[in-house]
Amino acid sequence: MNDKGFTVVAYNRTTSKVDSFLANEAKGTNVQGAHSIDELVSKLKTPRKIILLVKAGAAVDAFIDQLVPKLESGDIIIDGGNSHYPDSIRRTKELEAKGLLFVGSGVSGGEEGARYGPSLMPGGSPAAWPHIKEIFQKTAAQVNGEPCCDWVGETGAGHYVKMVHNGIEYGDMQLIAEAYDILKRGLGVSEDEIADIFNKWNKGVLDSFLIDITANILKFKDDDSEPMVSKILDQAGQKGTGKWTAVAALDAGMPVTLIGEAVFARCLSAIKSERVRASKLIAGPQKEAFKGDKQQFIDDLEQALYASKIISYTQGFMLMRETAKEMGWNLNYAGIAQMWRGGCIIKSVFLGDITAAYHKNLELESLLFDDFFNKAVHKAQPGWRRVVAQGVIWGIPLPAFSTALAFFDGYRSEIVPANLLQAQRDYFGAHTFRVLPGKENAKLKAGEDIHINWTGRGGNVSASTYLA
Amino acid sequence: MNDKGFTVVAYNRTTSKVDSFLANEAKGTNVQGAHSIDELVSKLKTPRKIILLVKAGAAVDAFIDQLVPKLESGDIIIDGGNSHYPDSIRRTKELEAKGLLFVGSGVSGGEEGARYGPSLMPGGSPAAWPHIKEIFQKTAAQVNGEPCCDWVGETGAGHYVKMVHNGIEYGDMQLIAEAYDILKRGLGVSEDEIADIFNKWNKGVLDSFLIDITANILKFKDDDSEPMVSKILDQAGQKGTGKWTAVAALDAGMPVTLIGEAVFARCLSAIKSERVRASKLIAGPQKEAFKGDKQQFIDDLEQALYASKIISYTQGFMLMRETAKEMGWNLNYAGIAQMWRGGCIIKSVFLGDITAAYHKNLELESLLFDDFFNKAVHKAQPGWRRVVAQGVIWGIPLPAFSTALAFFDGYRSEIVPANLLQAQRDYFGAHTFRVLPGKENAKLKAGEDIHINWTGRGGNVSASTYLA
Repeated sequence: MNDKGFTVVAYNRTTSKVDSFLANEAKGTNVQGAHSIDELVSKLKTPRKIILLVKAGAAVDAFIDQLVPKLESGDIIIDGGNSHYPDSIRRTKELEAKGLLFVGSGVSGGEEGARYGPSLMPGGSPAAWPHIKEIFQKTAAQVNGEPCCDWVGETGAGHYVKMVHNGIEYGDMQLIAEAYDILKRGLGVSEDEIADIFNKWNKGVLDSFLIDITANILKFKDDDSEPMVSKILDQAGQKGTGKWTAVAALDAGMPVTLIGEAVFARCLSAIKSERVRASKLIAGPQKEAFKGDKQQFIDDLEQALYASKIISYTQGFMLMRETAKEMGWNLNYAGIAQMWRGGCIIKSVFLGDITAAYHKNLELESLLFDDFFNKAVHKAQPGWRRVVAQGVIWGIPLPAFSTALAFFDGYRSEIVPANLLQAQRDYFGAHTFRVLPGKENAKLKAGEDIHINWTGRGGNVSASTYLA
Repeated sequence: MNDKGFTVVAYNRTTSKVDSFLANEAKGTNVQGAHSIDELVSKLKTPRKIILLVKAGAAVDAFIDQLVPKLESGDIIIDGGNSHYPDSIRRTKELEAKGLLFVGSGVSGGEEGARYGPSLMPGGSPAAWPHIKEIFQKTAAQVNGEPCCDWVGETGAGHYVKMVHNGIEYGDMQLIAEAYDILKRGLGVSEDEIADIFNKWNKGVLDSFLIDITANILKFKDDDSEPMVSKILDQAGQKGTGKWTAVAALDAGMPVTLIGEAVFARCLSAIKSERVRASKLIAGPQKEAFKGDKQQFIDDLEQALYASKIISYTQGFMLMRETAKEMGWNLNYAGIAQMWRGGCIIKSVFLGDITAAYHKNLELESLLFDDFFNKAVHKAQPGWRRVVAQGVIWGIPLPAFSTALAFFDGYRSEIVPANLLQAQRDYFGAHTFRVLPGKENAKLKAGEDIHINWTGRGGNVSASTYLA
């Protein structure tokens, strides 16, 4: 913010950190320090705009409680941490009741973004936006002259969208990991060659920050010239925002399967010692030499990754659409794609294409219905299927690629076998079903909850006492 | 309970229901009626044993609040509804603090089980068990002379185990639905023939209530001789206990992928109108006639269903094991399998084999490490892979079969590609990683959180400020 000409006052409860910051990182800038909340508040112009960058959870509430008595009506508290969106919904209401304004803003970009322009996803009190818009949009990353920041929506919308962003990030990372795994364990390609493949992909439809850094990682050698990545313990940390997204999807009843599998893949990685024991007790298929065309397989894999990514973003936008409906948020999907287009971990050319899709049709129901992505997924389909089938035959797990394909095939199915589920539920639990349109008759009436006495037994037990 | 010689007093707040019940279903039995809570309480011997069969949620608390002032120390309140286990944990504590005892009991079996012996999964106050043991175990379904009821564990353990049971039920039903789908849409087999296949499977390793009723359902014709199942809307209801299980798995960090996919498959079924539109806009692969041996494919499918089921139960027991650790519950896994062996919706010969596995080794880490299941899954593996690959080629979605196989291949992998995820997280977020055992050196020390300056840039940003 300082770099963009805004005057910033820095405060930390450990005041030595303020001094150290002023003497080092902030030396020669216009950044001012504050050694108490009173000093911080007194140095800010009204309406005050205070951004908290503290650990999500109780620390945010504690800081807000300290600030509130010092503030005046119309002042703005901005939470720039990784807060869970229900907390931001609550904080918006609590602070608005006190005459203050609240903004919960997603911030993404890691170290580089923090310093050179992040993706910012602000939501909360709409009245706050005109006061912070210029600061936020100038500070954010810029792509083609457009800021990667726009107003997301009411109450918890900013942190909700940030959460979905993180879930999608889990998915993107898992897809890349699976591509790496099948190249290495399946095709027997070295880390150096895989880096070259990724660098090539980074010039095409997959052009993105994560593909780029993956190539750099794969090239990075330890002092003994072994790839550093091969020395890293295969146990991934999580329990954070990826999990929140999967839970939010389950709550919303939206099939966000790819993020779900990405989170579960991290869970499976975490039980390393059990996997090591399992690896000694369970044999896979006989490894057969790959008889196909290696380059064709690599090209297929690029298409599989691309198609799976299209599915993941399709699912993510389905989730946001459903939640916006439930919450009464008026989300701007083109704006969201634009916010993710640069500055953040998932930044990519791909997100430019999503932005374009929503600009063409603001009411787009599904990414897969957009011409560009519809053509892309049709083109990718044969290679995608070959890769998933090859993983199955080799015994190389591709949970994210597979679930994306299963979703794709389910999504494009006019009829899925849930009719049988409904029959089972009615059979054992008198749970009723509806008739398929076109199959109505005197007994099977449209719009009615129908129960069949499947067995000729069954009493007058109603569905309300259904015990599964 | 009346059938087994216990005297029951029936109460409902709608007292006309009590009268109707006494005049009809309970006519000629020893069941007594009560028209007020006072009358109910006065008619029961101390310690009173009162079982609530009301809708999970607020109704349970409301009823308990009405009961408590009328009860004496040592009386037992039993919640036999489908309560969420955190509520049962809370109620155990609240009622024990008032000198009462609480039991949260899972009850499964649908209409038939309710009448002829359900599976009962009681947990809560251990001091309650001796008072209700005889009633519960005699009332429960019996298999080979053993009751499908035993004490599950403390506080919410009974309802937790019931929740996992329901999650597994979602999984079993989804697996059957996928088998039906690929037989019908893939192999082009009629409902009648599929019923014959299921009836044959029901004589082998898949012998179970759900396979049995599925065959009956598939044979069931509407008046015009069309299979009734083909007239049922393919939109499955949920938002209940299956979802709870998936959320519990995410919370526990356990990869219970099959239940997750089963819940998401119901979500996907629910967005029928979007699927119908998608079916017009998205084409699948060219349908090629099946060139293989049909009977071989059907046998492969039986093995795929069996192997996937083994994975689902393996995951379910992993989840219970992990949660028991967190909660301090001392779960009896052989007892749980025995409780599910009969009376309930997932009852099967298979659960007899699981009971046997835990009887052989009470400390069994994984079902896949048991000789019987280890051999079974090895035997099933080739057919399972052929079926999943065929689904991919045909474009028939098999989300549960596929995720089971991906889990299997990940679980038996000593190394999964999570090393790359950790490298990425360290690259963009300074999130640190650990060294792979055997790869330690002066820079990469065992047990340390290691950060590499991958780019040569990167500042003194610590992992605690990590923003994904």
